[in-house]
Amino acid sequence: MEDFYEKTQNQPASDTALDVISPHFLEEFLHALTRKDKKKLADLVRPLEPADLAVVLEGLSKANLALFFSLINSHFNFDVLLEFSDHVRQQAVQLIGIKDLSKRLAELDSDDAFFLIDELTPEQQTEILAAIPAAARASFEKIQSYPEDSAARLMQQELVAIPSFWKVGDVLSYIQKSTVLPDVFYEVYVVNPKYKVLGAVTISKLLKYGHNVALKTIMKKEVKTIPATMDQEEVAYFFRHYHLVSAPVEDESGRIIGVIMSDDVVDVIEEEAERDIFQLAGVGETDFTAPFLVTSTKRIGWLIVSLVNALLAAFVIESYHATIENRAALAALMTIVAAMGSASGTQVVAITVRAFATRVFRNMSPWKALWKETLIGLANSIFFSVILALIVLVWLGDVKIALILPAALIFNMCWASAGGVLLPVLISRLGLDPAVSAGPLLGATTDVFGFAAFLALASLVL
Amino acid sequence: MEDFYEKTQNQPASDTALDVISPHFLEEFLHALTRKDKKKLADLVRPLEPADLAVVLEGLSKANLALFFSLINSHFNFDVLLEFSDHVRQQAVQLIGIKDLSKRLAELDSDDAFFLIDELTPEQQTEILAAIPAAARASFEKIQSYPEDSAARLMQQELVAIPSFWKVGDVLSYIQKSTVLPDVFYEVYVVNPKYKVLGAVTISKLLKYGHNVALKTIMKKEVKTIPATMDQEEVAYFFRHYHLVSAPVEDESGRIIGVIMSDDVVDVIEEEAERDIFQLAGVGETDFTAPFLVTSTKRIGWLIVSLVNALLAAFVIESYHATIENRAALAALMTIVAAMGSASGTQVVAITVRAFATRVFRNMSPWKALWKETLIGLANSIFFSVILALIVLVWLGDVKIALILPAALIFNMCWASAGGVLLPVLISRLGLDPAVSAGPLLGATTDVFGFAAFLALASLVL
Repeated sequence: MEDFYEKTQNQPASDTALDVISPHFLEEFLHALTRKDKKKLADLVRPLEPADLAVVLEGLSKANLALFFSLINSHFNFDVLLEFSDHVRQQAVQLIGIKDLSKRLAELDSDDAFFLIDELTPEQQTEILAAIPAAARASFEKIQSYPEDSAARLMQQELVAIPSFWKVGDVLSYIQKSTVLPDVFYEVYVVNPKYKVLGAVTISKLLKYGHNVALKTIMKKEVKTIPATMDQEEVAYFFRHYHLVSAPVEDESGRIIGVIMSDDVVDVIEEEAERDIFQLAGVGETDFTAPFLVTSTKRIGWLIVSLVNALLAAFVIESYHATIENRAALAALMTIVAAMGSASGTQVVAITVRAFATRVFRNMSPWKALWKETLIGLANSIFFSVILALIVLVWLGDVKIALILPAALIFNMCWASAGGVLLPVLISRLGLDPAVSAGPLLGATTDVFGFAAFLALASLVL
Repeated sequence: MEDFYEKTQNQPASDTALDVISPHFLEEFLHALTRKDKKKLADLVRPLEPADLAVVLEGLSKANLALFFSLINSHFNFDVLLEFSDHVRQQAVQLIGIKDLSKRLAELDSDDAFFLIDELTPEQQTEILAAIPAAARASFEKIQSYPEDSAARLMQQELVAIPSFWKVGDVLSYIQKSTVLPDVFYEVYVVNPKYKVLGAVTISKLLKYGHNVALKTIMKKEVKTIPATMDQEEVAYFFRHYHLVSAPVEDESGRIIGVIMSDDVVDVIEEEAERDIFQLAGVGETDFTAPFLVTSTKRIGWLIVSLVNALLAAFVIESYHATIENRAALAALMTIVAAMGSASGTQVVAITVRAFATRVFRNMSPWKALWKETLIGLANSIFFSVILALIVLVWLGDVKIALILPAALIFNMCWASAGGVLLPVLISRLGLDPAVSAGPLLGATTDVFGFAAFLALASLVL
């Protein structure tokens, strides 16, 4: 049984509620699968949450995944498709077939259906759009007209909009009778005839009032609505800032067109934070599950930047070869100046990039941060200079080098601290994402400046 | 008017709904404050969300903050205290006074009240616990008995628990009459006489059924309950995995004791991702608003690690001083080997640390990741070796160095890629957080190995 669930063996047993997928369950599941026991398989799969079923299926070999879909037919929760990683989803879609897929698309919330179609190949998209009802097609095309990563792409279109003259009782009986309402909702929106949001009432609040109370009198009037074109990162900040669980989305004319739920935002927050981490580390958007060649070529991009940087530094060093040939110890000490600069720079860049992500500079001048970080860089570099001066005196007994090394170190660490704020701020002023290039750019300068400062001083003084 | 709202001037105007705090608003606000116009101030502050009021107040000087609280008295939404950064909250608590604070604590949700008390100094805590009702005190002490960062610290204790024999109508009239229910809730929990959760019903579902339907027949039976001691990082993963909006928390005896809402989890996700970023960058938990000395000393910790690393590398280089004295170009080239190793290592460590954070190794063997990354390291290092060999041939015309440099590079980049997976995995097996030390540890080895491999080969071959 190839490539199957290696994790459950070498993963320490955890006591969390997450471990619904026990080794015993997997054994039973595999057994039923290989015996082609349809009934047993259905019984095992039925109580699983889609997210858990996805974990089980992702562990299967290609052949077994095909076997599973042929046995289970369409008797499984279609939400599982949303939980797959991209390449397993592609496989699953092919195994299920566009025809079966299009039939069951209506079971999904509109945002999930959109996501699923959007991930298909262009040919599959054409095929599925031809197969679904015209209304669903129109809805898909409407959402697709909004930019990627916009609020419209996150929202579901199902929502409860209520005219402002209704009473609590009207709303309750509408909810009971209507068949087009979302599965789950937390607020109803009070709208004017042009569907502009006038207010919102959480349904827990609705239940606390008598049937004859007018909605207008209990609704919250200051509703934070999200423009459909707002970037998802901004949406995430919006939810965090106001501690929202759901928020209405309006189009350019101010008309409510959907609702964003906090569980969608949770994914965005995780994604955005991960993007920051990967960008700081010079990795593209890859992970362990992406194919070898994709990962390898994506990594090479930033490594080329590192190479150019390293070559630049090497040329700087080489230009002082006469100085180094006289005293090889200089070659050893110059690396300390570069390394300490790079370490301080990494610290400050990380803090500045996060400050952008969490909108710190809306409440604080970046110049204040620049000033503070430069002072910290100065203080810390003096601390390390004293240590290094002592080490050089003991090790080499050379007073001149014991003065040159600290001077270069102070210069480089102060630059690293200042540049750690300055570069991201300047990059952001240019309208670019400060996370993308601030780290490698600063790293290039701390290496080159570190070697150059130290060797230039050495060639002058020694 | 010192240190006041520099941001609004140098921040580009944004068109998002977040900019409720316009420069015009701030001008009016400051004007009312300096004229001590209580009524105007109250009018300006009333429509603001607590999060926005916090932004306004955080921009005030100490004197103006004191003036604000003396004028506005207690006519403001106490939730604003939850939105302050730590040091402004301390100031505000002192300005408001423990007596007024204790009176209004009951307005807050239990989790917010807990948070507020928990952040006070021990003396203030004693004072406030003596001033609040016995029930509130007991509730505080109960929560405090759970570990920091546990689910119990995130939950609110207010919830709707319903006996299993009730009908929809019973629940609706209970909600309408009860005075102890939470302000906002999304689910009611069906419990047995021992308060063990048997099922859950979202209130939007409740509204779709007639009064005579038994809860038992419509409740969702597979409710994911969270143990009170579960770590908040695990809670966040739990919410993400199952796309939850709220989840019940149970104590050791299986009794429901609270509910966690997704907006609390959003903060945790953001915090945890930020912790990963900062730990990878070797920064403690600091930010721009922390006092100078705190920040400076926290940074020094990891810089000392960098220093030890740099000194180690320097000693390695120094041990080959005879080799370097003959050919200073070696000093230039060795830095390339170290820099490229460090760049690849950083990439792989970031991916591995995120894989731990997002529980990738629950579905995938780390050895598979190790194998894949090492192969990528090999492929990429061969790519860069060819480039470097050509550069060395053109630049120095030295065939021996054109062979040594690639050999050292391939060794170091393969190690960096393997170590980038191996170190975090080993650290995690030891029960430690892989984010904390994997980056600096790997960086130490790629520098030392890079210099050593290149110089050792050079001293042998040249």
